[in-house]
Amino acid sequence: MSFRDTLVAPKLYAKADCGQIDSGMSLDLAAIRAAHARIRPYIKRTPVLTNDALDAARGAKLSFKCENLQAAGAFKSRGACNAVFSLTDGEAARGVVTHSSGNHAAALARAARLRGIAAHIVMPKGSPQSKVRNVESFGGLITFCEPGLNAREAACARIATETGAALVHPFDDLRVIAGQGTATVELLEEVPGLDIILCPVGGGGLLCGTAVAAKGLKPGIRVIGVEPALADDVAQSFRAGRRISIPTPATIADGLRTNSTGELNLPLIRQYVDDVVTVTEAGIIAAMRELWEKLHLVIEPSAAVPYAALLEHKLTFSGQNVGVILSGGNVDLESLPWLKR
Amino acid sequence: MSFRDTLVAPKLYAKADCGQIDSGMSLDLAAIRAAHARIRPYIKRTPVLTNDALDAARGAKLSFKCENLQAAGAFKSRGACNAVFSLTDGEAARGVVTHSSGNHAAALARAARLRGIAAHIVMPKGSPQSKVRNVESFGGLITFCEPGLNAREAACARIATETGAALVHPFDDLRVIAGQGTATVELLEEVPGLDIILCPVGGGGLLCGTAVAAKGLKPGIRVIGVEPALADDVAQSFRAGRRISIPTPATIADGLRTNSTGELNLPLIRQYVDDVVTVTEAGIIAAMRELWEKLHLVIEPSAAVPYAALLEHKLTFSGQNVGVILSGGNVDLESLPWLKR
Repeated sequence: MSFRDTLVAPKLYAKADCGQIDSGMSLDLAAIRAAHARIRPYIKRTPVLTNDALDAARGAKLSFKCENLQAAGAFKSRGACNAVFSLTDGEAARGVVTHSSGNHAAALARAARLRGIAAHIVMPKGSPQSKVRNVESFGGLITFCEPGLNAREAACARIATETGAALVHPFDDLRVIAGQGTATVELLEEVPGLDIILCPVGGGGLLCGTAVAAKGLKPGIRVIGVEPALADDVAQSFRAGRRISIPTPATIADGLRTNSTGELNLPLIRQYVDDVVTVTEAGIIAAMRELWEKLHLVIEPSAAVPYAALLEHKLTFSGQNVGVILSGGNVDLESLPWLKR
Repeated sequence: MSFRDTLVAPKLYAKADCGQIDSGMSLDLAAIRAAHARIRPYIKRTPVLTNDALDAARGAKLSFKCENLQAAGAFKSRGACNAVFSLTDGEAARGVVTHSSGNHAAALARAARLRGIAAHIVMPKGSPQSKVRNVESFGGLITFCEPGLNAREAACARIATETGAALVHPFDDLRVIAGQGTATVELLEEVPGLDIILCPVGGGGLLCGTAVAAKGLKPGIRVIGVEPALADDVAQSFRAGRRISIPTPATIADGLRTNSTGELNLPLIRQYVDDVVTVTEAGIIAAMRELWEKLHLVIEPSAAVPYAALLEHKLTFSGQNVGVILSGGNVDLESLPWLKR
């Protein structure tokens, strides 16, 4: 692909965009290792689970990295902690700001509380009460805005101007991406024999971190992003070689309802990721149900997306060692998708 | 208590009832360590999880031993494997038999398959299809009988006579009790500072193993059994100093619906356990809901029983290090108790 030949090296992005990080940092394995050292006191080393019944059913050796058991219930704590603890004391004193109604918001609020600084969270009016309570439980300062990306970004920009708070984007931020990559460092430490890693894709923060970490540790490994077919902006963008926006997706995987990947993300995805495949809504629900029953884990729909690719035979994996990142576990227990059908 | 003074030493029970086990075995910490070495290739070392939000809510430092993540979804795999792999080759060749419709049946079928021997499982007619399928999935040979303990025991005895299969009782068996105690060896290796361990009580197999292991490793630790108030045979028996039978209990905690503890169990409970407390059905459901939401684990109602004792303030534990054994995760995902109310 000619696009890859002309790709700006990730290191240059890192230098350009991460001035506030240690000058030695760049988006390579070393940067992810530095992030790991930085955030280790604030995150959990989550377990990796295996399951004979699922291996037999899928004809592969599966290793599940349980980020649903991460602090605040999702891998997002890794990136948020890396961003917050990368700030200088002067920057940190002015707090952080983001727009998100989901796991990144709660993770950023938690990270900010751990550092003792303010977290301004812009959430659209009408966000689920459970998500509002979650952010509040970590002391996040919520500003409600009109729904829609424009209103959210405008509110964010206004708060940043008024307070001097540092923006911590949910995925289009190298500090965040480096933090997300630390899950894969742990996974490969525990299961060095992996042939493939499957990773859910929303904006692409987790996918970029996963791929940079995995290829840095084991160049021959395959890294596959899995996306709901209803939210296939990254799959489209990966193939087109340019960022493609789609209307706000209606997928059940609420953590993956982004309509465009980030400026920093697409070049990294194109350089380090082997493929991006898509799965159906029915596949996501079936995968979620099967993982709850067999793994005895509460995972959110987004976390079931990679396993859905195995269920729907979207990949060649027979007999291989497959790592599956279970991204989070924050789900409304009053409303389970298999009880609605 | 005069009962305790006249208690026959556990070692004598072991000698009397476990002739098929290594002659050096007795029901003390050494026996549990021997069981651990024996079963280690066949079970999982389950993770111990902590959760800041639950600690803050309960005012204690909680450590959850996740036996819902054990092979076949429950701690029962420990005792079943210890019993099956304690058999001589000659005994093993004739297979094993038990009566159970629950986790012990699946665990015994799995253990027998691992040893390459037959597992005869007596199940009452009308057992849930999910439980039947679970036993079948491990190759268990099911014999259906009329409901009721008498019919189950009669069918079991008939099969034992016809086949020579060794009976592996779900809880009234020192090999099983020793196996169940291995969860606590792992828990205290990981969290040596525990002050209390809370353990669900059905027939008392897990409670006995937990208590013998815990007191052997750390004499000053407190071990508390927690039982549904609707199934309080062990709480009653503990206080009376004799085995008290109750009508078949109707608790939602289906793993704890025993109506009497075992002959071997009560003396051990009286010697090693500090107290047995009871909890309400509403408390069990609330505990289950809270642990699903905050720990992101699928646990069955029985596994929520110890945490219900914290929710219902049945214990003095403020500021203490509390170990909580989450016993299993096999639950009907179509029918969750908080959605029925």
